[in-house]
Amino acid sequence: MPGNVAIIFTDIPSGLPVVGKDLTVRSVSYDSTGACPENGLFLQSLYASIDPYQRGRMRPAHIKSYSPPFILGQPINNRGIAKVLRSKNPNYKEGDIVVGMLPIQEYIALDDKRLFLLRQLNNPLGIEDIRVFLGALGMPGLTAYAGFYKIGKPKKGDTIFVSAASGAVGQMVGQLAKLEGLKVIGSVGSDEKLEFITKELGFDGGFNYKKEKPAAALQRLAPEGLDIYYENVGGEHLEAALDSMKDFGRIPMCGTIAGYNTPVEQQYPVRNYSLIFSKRLTVRGFVVSDTGFADKYDKEHQERVQKWIKDGTIKTTTWEVQGIENAPEALTALFSGRNFGKAVLKY
Amino acid sequence: MPGNVAIIFTDIPSGLPVVGKDLTVRSVSYDSTGACPENGLFLQSLYASIDPYQRGRMRPAHIKSYSPPFILGQPINNRGIAKVLRSKNPNYKEGDIVVGMLPIQEYIALDDKRLFLLRQLNNPLGIEDIRVFLGALGMPGLTAYAGFYKIGKPKKGDTIFVSAASGAVGQMVGQLAKLEGLKVIGSVGSDEKLEFITKELGFDGGFNYKKEKPAAALQRLAPEGLDIYYENVGGEHLEAALDSMKDFGRIPMCGTIAGYNTPVEQQYPVRNYSLIFSKRLTVRGFVVSDTGFADKYDKEHQERVQKWIKDGTIKTTTWEVQGIENAPEALTALFSGRNFGKAVLKY
Repeated sequence: MPGNVAIIFTDIPSGLPVVGKDLTVRSVSYDSTGACPENGLFLQSLYASIDPYQRGRMRPAHIKSYSPPFILGQPINNRGIAKVLRSKNPNYKEGDIVVGMLPIQEYIALDDKRLFLLRQLNNPLGIEDIRVFLGALGMPGLTAYAGFYKIGKPKKGDTIFVSAASGAVGQMVGQLAKLEGLKVIGSVGSDEKLEFITKELGFDGGFNYKKEKPAAALQRLAPEGLDIYYENVGGEHLEAALDSMKDFGRIPMCGTIAGYNTPVEQQYPVRNYSLIFSKRLTVRGFVVSDTGFADKYDKEHQERVQKWIKDGTIKTTTWEVQGIENAPEALTALFSGRNFGKAVLKY
Repeated sequence: MPGNVAIIFTDIPSGLPVVGKDLTVRSVSYDSTGACPENGLFLQSLYASIDPYQRGRMRPAHIKSYSPPFILGQPINNRGIAKVLRSKNPNYKEGDIVVGMLPIQEYIALDDKRLFLLRQLNNPLGIEDIRVFLGALGMPGLTAYAGFYKIGKPKKGDTIFVSAASGAVGQMVGQLAKLEGLKVIGSVGSDEKLEFITKELGFDGGFNYKKEKPAAALQRLAPEGLDIYYENVGGEHLEAALDSMKDFGRIPMCGTIAGYNTPVEQQYPVRNYSLIFSKRLTVRGFVVSDTGFADKYDKEHQERVQKWIKDGTIKTTTWEVQGIENAPEALTALFSGRNFGKAVLKY
């Protein structure tokens, strides 16, 4: 059995994380015999999700936020898919495919105290590309689903604008919105992504924000105004969306990736917040683990979206990065939009 | 009978309205015999409400907003209290006191098509100071009440921050919050108002924003963080409140008076909007006439607050301006905070 490589959190970044300084690829100590803890499992990692929210976990431990900070000197973690190599637990057997919150590390000895982080992959329809369980059927997909329905309150005929529209969350929101009979506008960061959301995913319109200002694009694509803005970006996108919202519009705020690597003093200044009042908008931030989101929508999301993926109604696109040594670079790529679709590490 | 003076909307202001240019005191034509329309009423105005939202109605007619624009060349209007001088309508008799949406004008002939704008003053407890029916028991009081309960979702022990805390809405929100067992912090624009909210109204703390930055004051007065920010001001107050909010905090956005006379390019730039996401805040704009506010809370508001005013539990303060010729000046005074409490015109 080879070495056991992990991605270690080695320093707190200021701005974009630097590979080799803030995130370091390193072999970690492990029992080369692959000993399995009493009542536990010994796993081989197959895939790990790579998500923008991980940037927020790379912070000083005393700063509170919605997700726990990474621990300096320890492997970073995230949702992943792994194969059971050895089991001393009656609920698992060798060869089982499991999904859960795992260190970004090739081999993992998991004692029984940490088994609550795992579950068997729930794949009754036999979806072949199991990477979708980290995307459309994973945390990003459930985030998209829950925020869209719970805060977006979509009605047939509504117009929705989705930023970061080819990303893991955006591509799901847009396709759900089409299924519900909405007009869907998306913003993306390249012409290739624009073609993808309009030709492949069936969005009614979109724009490349690197070529056209969001405000101008929304005037052009949705002159009737927006009922919902599904917010993944922040800054200039948020400002433009506020200008375009109809009265009583809803803004599920799922993230603000434009600002994740920038101190607050340098964030894009939003000056038209009074429109939240005068248009009587609802702007609501959420993360999927909040009460009323995953707990309420998980079962429905799995049932509906598994079927839609199986029959091709919903399409998925995965940006697969091969080799754990490339994972840190892949994480930083999310912030310049170099990924195309859901970023997944294949070990 | 004397002349019939009204306040006419004569030009669209840029910035603060100019008396004599944008708002003009002028006698309007009227039948000096005080003829009463068939099925209608002939009224003598007693009091009119003076409210910040009237600034928003002084706009070009083609611009949509939550309240209808004033009509150039016509009297401005607002909620007022009047006495019935003559009635040809079976539902009203001479001497009745009525309240409703009326032109700011001394005498008013109201035909039956406009009677839906009026109702009899509902004063079963015989509250002596009927001006409160334009304040604590009027539109501002109901706005305070509905926004506080519906969006604020107060729980005993919560901390609430109220801006413009001695104003018509703020003074009601703060007192309701005390009755519900909250810790209440207010911001005001003078030391006299600060003494009023802390000594008279029982707020737990407050600050004069002309002497202390909201961010510093909130750190000092509510280091535990805010569960609710009742937003009347915008700008630097909003920014500071976002910094101080606890996770899952609520921000009923009732107005943004700091910006009513300023073009959007010159508004205070808010850069920390990402906190709406990361703290999972709900920011919601509303006006009292929206579905789910006045319709839901009107009866409860009248029943509870009439009793509380009658028995002294809730205090009110009115800034009475005497003489219709002073009404335009009084409206502009709201934007520099020269008023102290609910602004009311006494004809």
